[in-house]
Amino acid sequence: MQKFEMVDHLALIGVGLLGASVGLGLKRRGWAGRITGVGRTQATLDEAQRLGAIDASTRDLPGLLGEVDLVVVAAPLGAFEKVFEQIGQMDAATKQPIITDVGSTKSSVQRAADRWLREPGRFVGAHPMAGSEQQGPGAADSELFVGKPCIICPGDAADPEAVAVVQALFQGLGMSLLTMSPEQHDRQTAVTSHLPHLAAALLVQTAAQLGGWDVASTGFASTTRLASSNPPMRRDIILANREAILEALDQFATDVQALRTLVEQSDGDGILRMLEQARDRREQWMEGKNHEP
Amino acid sequence: MQKFEMVDHLALIGVGLLGASVGLGLKRRGWAGRITGVGRTQATLDEAQRLGAIDASTRDLPGLLGEVDLVVVAAPLGAFEKVFEQIGQMDAATKQPIITDVGSTKSSVQRAADRWLREPGRFVGAHPMAGSEQQGPGAADSELFVGKPCIICPGDAADPEAVAVVQALFQGLGMSLLTMSPEQHDRQTAVTSHLPHLAAALLVQTAAQLGGWDVASTGFASTTRLASSNPPMRRDIILANREAILEALDQFATDVQALRTLVEQSDGDGILRMLEQARDRREQWMEGKNHEP
Repeated sequence: MQKFEMVDHLALIGVGLLGASVGLGLKRRGWAGRITGVGRTQATLDEAQRLGAIDASTRDLPGLLGEVDLVVVAAPLGAFEKVFEQIGQMDAATKQPIITDVGSTKSSVQRAADRWLREPGRFVGAHPMAGSEQQGPGAADSELFVGKPCIICPGDAADPEAVAVVQALFQGLGMSLLTMSPEQHDRQTAVTSHLPHLAAALLVQTAAQLGGWDVASTGFASTTRLASSNPPMRRDIILANREAILEALDQFATDVQALRTLVEQSDGDGILRMLEQARDRREQWMEGKNHEP
Repeated sequence: MQKFEMVDHLALIGVGLLGASVGLGLKRRGWAGRITGVGRTQATLDEAQRLGAIDASTRDLPGLLGEVDLVVVAAPLGAFEKVFEQIGQMDAATKQPIITDVGSTKSSVQRAADRWLREPGRFVGAHPMAGSEQQGPGAADSELFVGKPCIICPGDAADPEAVAVVQALFQGLGMSLLTMSPEQHDRQTAVTSHLPHLAAALLVQTAAQLGGWDVASTGFASTTRLASSNPPMRRDIILANREAILEALDQFATDVQALRTLVEQSDGDGILRMLEQARDRREQWMEGKNHEP
């Protein structure tokens, strides 16, 4: 973990599935520094400590900030404003630690950093694309991030040293890195993550109204799998990435209407062309995925 | 295989994945009757015979009909009109065999039967819900149908003997049976099979226009899995089930717009309610599935 040697003490804000997995992953890989967990619920902090994800815990975030080199915010998206506001209130005499996060949207997080932090350039957002249906420190796994992509999203004014440390953190956890701006990240994930989540839920809603459960099979199960995701987490993501999701929804609705016209006109050639394009484009993507290191 | 004892000679029209799997499944389960394959391509018929799915083959369907007790139509949906027209032209002096099929839509097949067959009551459509990404007799599997549901769709004038024989056929292949009218089948599959196939293709099309491939992950893969299905087969299904699919698309489009309004208004409570309803409804369905025998 080069560049990570300068970090002696790390603060984990939030010790749920992702936060505790960061702690376990670092410990497992032999990082010798200290990890202090910060959270709202003492029982959760105690569980994370018992599992070895953190060395100690506190509920006094401002007091801790002068002591740590790196802060990883692994709180729910809806709590970010408050967390960054608290960090911004730290003692003006001490240097602000480098800060990163593991949130699923990046523009709103960057905006909160720009708004509240004294040194917003020392914040570099990240989106490690790993997760599980489960929640809480009990579901944490030191190998959760291994082999998965992590998108690093430096803002315009990001400090190169902070970028390097954040890259080293996630690379050290076994992830392959991609870099793009927060805005690019949000537009892209709106299309291939947030929209599919919504489409999955909408397919269930359509079936709830028109029926079809008796004949629903494996195809329905896989297409709607994302509808079983955690609703409050998804709600936070939608609110945080509203603009890009509206754009994706509008394009999708336009595509639905174009297809509807083809079906209405019994345009077999047009329908076939659309299905072939979609199949080819998906296969192309799947092959690229398989070729990834 | 009770009720199936009366069948001595079965004709398989189409010896691709499904047709050849019917032949292999019957042979494997010790049925002692004769199976003659009918198809357009001699090489495919020869392959099916070499694999043991059929005992003999012919390209002369009308000549075969006087000799068989049961016909299983396993041709592509687009070929049904022609197949039924040919069956309707059989020698008027001989009794029409019982006929079933394995097509993915049922109303258009029933209409073709009503239009062309001399004894349409001896046709009983079926939709064995089994398949594979692969095609052709080489992909056939004697266990393809085992444990899967088969929807039996008798028309209004169906002959009870024909229904019993068709039920015995698919039960004999290891399937669990559901019975509903062709119209009910088509309305239900439009919602939980055909619409998800289209939504999967549309999600790929939206990404083809707006991007997002770099960050697309396992969620996108599972939601769009059905977009990799065989395009000509899907096109035939859409054309055959046009009305019900239009109804499902319209309901879906209405649901998309309702969600769009919630997102536009940043209505977190409304979004959460929608996501919770969808998750609960899906979980309820999944639990029911798990409780099935």
